[in-house]
Amino acid sequence: MVSAAKEANAEVLKVAFHRFKPYGVSGVVVIAESHLSIHTWPESGYAAVDFYTCGDHTDPWRACEFAAEKLGAQTMLTTEVKRGIASSNGQYTHVVHEHAGRSEAKRSA
Amino acid sequence: MVSAAKEANAEVLKVAFHRFKPYGVSGVVVIAESHLSIHTWPESGYAAVDFYTCGDHTDPWRACEFAAEKLGAQTMLTTEVKRGIASSNGQYTHVVHEHAGRSEAKRSA
Repeated sequence: MVSAAKEANAEVLKVAFHRFKPYGVSGVVVIAESHLSIHTWPESGYAAVDFYTCGDHTDPWRACEFAAEKLGAQTMLTTEVKRGIASSNGQYTHVVHEHAGRSEAKRSA
Repeated sequence: MVSAAKEANAEVLKVAFHRFKPYGVSGVVVIAESHLSIHTWPESGYAAVDFYTCGDHTDPWRACEFAAEKLGAQTMLTTEVKRGIASSNGQYTHVVHEHAGRSEAKRSA
């Protein structure tokens, strides 16, 4: 995930991982631009991964594709959430972009 | 956020925080049941917070309400994502529940 962060052109600040017994891992990479997280269930062939970045210099999709490749993902289902969008009333909102269908471990949007 | 995790009845495994200068913090608490994360922009009065838990014994909404209270949030906008839902074809999916409107820093669903 540190490599994935670097793929996204993010600056790595902190790394915290835990390995479960008999298998599975949970971990987070805190980056200057927010965080990347992963939770794996090898027994189910499933992983839940977040790529949360800020700024125009980062590309979370590159991290996503990198992680999918390293995980050997056969398929992935992605949802994009744009967060911290300033509203006209001074409050903040977020927008969910559900990406239709699955990709064969390629970017779906 | 460690206290928030405990409010959710989660088991804390790892803690990784970074304080930005002149202000703002990014941090994650890895729990046995996934993770909690926070990113704050005090200059904008905004924070983006995730509460990702697994299992029936945890209640992420308790952590959410606790964090909102500690942050002194005047309003919050929440979206719930149910992840790792097994499909009949053996693949996994997730479902986004957008909670309409803002709450006055109370649970909106």
